[in-house]
Amino acid sequence: MRRKTNRIDGRALAQAELARLKQELKSIGPIQLTTINVGRRADNLSYLKIKTRLGRELGIKVTNYQLPKSASVTKGLQLIERLNQDQAVQGILVQLPLPPTWPQEEIINRINPEKDVDCLHPVNFGRFSLTPQLDWSSENWSQRLLPPTARAVLTILKTINYSPRGRRAVVVGQGNLAGKPISLLLSQLGATVISANEFTPDLARETRRAEILVSATGQPKLIQGAMVSPGVIALDLGFSRIKGKIQGDLDFDSVALKANWITPVPGGVGPITVSSLFANLILLAKRQDTKERVNFRNNRHRLL
Amino acid sequence: MRRKTNRIDGRALAQAELARLKQELKSIGPIQLTTINVGRRADNLSYLKIKTRLGRELGIKVTNYQLPKSASVTKGLQLIERLNQDQAVQGILVQLPLPPTWPQEEIINRINPEKDVDCLHPVNFGRFSLTPQLDWSSENWSQRLLPPTARAVLTILKTINYSPRGRRAVVVGQGNLAGKPISLLLSQLGATVISANEFTPDLARETRRAEILVSATGQPKLIQGAMVSPGVIALDLGFSRIKGKIQGDLDFDSVALKANWITPVPGGVGPITVSSLFANLILLAKRQDTKERVNFRNNRHRLL
Repeated sequence: MRRKTNRIDGRALAQAELARLKQELKSIGPIQLTTINVGRRADNLSYLKIKTRLGRELGIKVTNYQLPKSASVTKGLQLIERLNQDQAVQGILVQLPLPPTWPQEEIINRINPEKDVDCLHPVNFGRFSLTPQLDWSSENWSQRLLPPTARAVLTILKTINYSPRGRRAVVVGQGNLAGKPISLLLSQLGATVISANEFTPDLARETRRAEILVSATGQPKLIQGAMVSPGVIALDLGFSRIKGKIQGDLDFDSVALKANWITPVPGGVGPITVSSLFANLILLAKRQDTKERVNFRNNRHRLL
Repeated sequence: MRRKTNRIDGRALAQAELARLKQELKSIGPIQLTTINVGRRADNLSYLKIKTRLGRELGIKVTNYQLPKSASVTKGLQLIERLNQDQAVQGILVQLPLPPTWPQEEIINRINPEKDVDCLHPVNFGRFSLTPQLDWSSENWSQRLLPPTARAVLTILKTINYSPRGRRAVVVGQGNLAGKPISLLLSQLGATVISANEFTPDLARETRRAEILVSATGQPKLIQGAMVSPGVIALDLGFSRIKGKIQGDLDFDSVALKANWITPVPGGVGPITVSSLFANLILLAKRQDTKERVNFRNNRHRLL
């Protein structure tokens, strides 16, 4: 008999979060997300399309700046400076990857941290990394800027009501966009975290130990059913294309036979990562709003 | 027959590094480290004494600011601001822990990141966290600001010529001063890292899997010989006192029976952590120096 697996419907979770955000937006006033993309990588363009569509569904203005691959880095930095200064812009997102000749770190570091919806500026990533152990149900999480992938994992765990504290989590892949921040988050939530990478000599030996398994390598079907233990919660952050078909890191059918919960690709963690991006945008817009009000008060004091 | 264990002499390693730094200092000119301590915790004072002595041995001016426990936080922040501005100060160190009523995060965040020898300001910790996988022998490491405990672990691994790539490392304790940055460093160096904490249900089951074992909990003799596998490299970041006697996290005698390499407490990782602090100070002083020269050039341009 086939075990009952619960498939996590990422699109439904994202819609629920977007509905919540829509309510929150009512008390904020108009906000704008700007995106910068260099070159015409198909993946970048399709991610931007999703972000633009969801943003507009929320009633958020999304402005895309598309630079040709031949544009100079200086031009990119000038654009960021201009958006940093623009009070009508609450969020700035540089779509990664940039062309290989672009100095990614320098570009990201130029973004005003108060507008950094991806939580990739060192000061934001640092604040996130330095978070002490917190209870997973703590209200604090909603007030913290988290990398969108980490916030997506937190949302999923809350939805299935599974506290990672005392659990063994295996995170495969340690990139800055997904594996690394998710390892950090799960550790902050009290899990024992095994961070694996391309040098891990016997990956299956590690993944079989997972109660929570997160894979974020971009290697299609890296994780086969034989590599996981029954009852695992399997979260797929992978995204690749084989002959035009979108494929995750998990071999879905064989892993689903053993998992208690599993996310598909597409329609799993991806949409929740995008709604998390907007959660970050709204958090930042509220902080900027408070700051402006404080500045206004201070200036008024000065005028009196 | 007793296995041959190699005991790592941290004092000798620290002396070797200090000798190297002394050479480097010749080309820099006089530099100053300032420390701030609040209250009179015995541990804080004894750490500061060691830092002051080693600094002076190097010919570095070390100025200690001692605030009474009753001092106001505002006064602490003003002191930091003054040291931030003071061009004769290259490094600022706040001795932790601060009294419980002091807002530690706010205090640390006020330090000019360019003078942050502990690599605890979010922008520095973030830059460190975002480091991609690097070869352990890469020259890049010496140009990066690392948390002193992480730099100490790197120094030890280089000294015993043991690359962590593809190895299984277990890090017990996930505090911001030691466990967390060391987990991050070992992962960046290509190890598969198991980050354990106080909620790990069966700690011995994890520690027995370690090829590199790092313990940073402050729980005396937490790690017994029965909890490690033969051949382990055991690094002790613990520091506690039992009846006045200094004690590490490892039960030294029983772990030493099985370890290939082991650090004692005292005289192990501790002194190398302090010499790492001065390596950071000199790195920062050189950066400030370059920056000043650039500023000077720019101002001259403006005057012409």
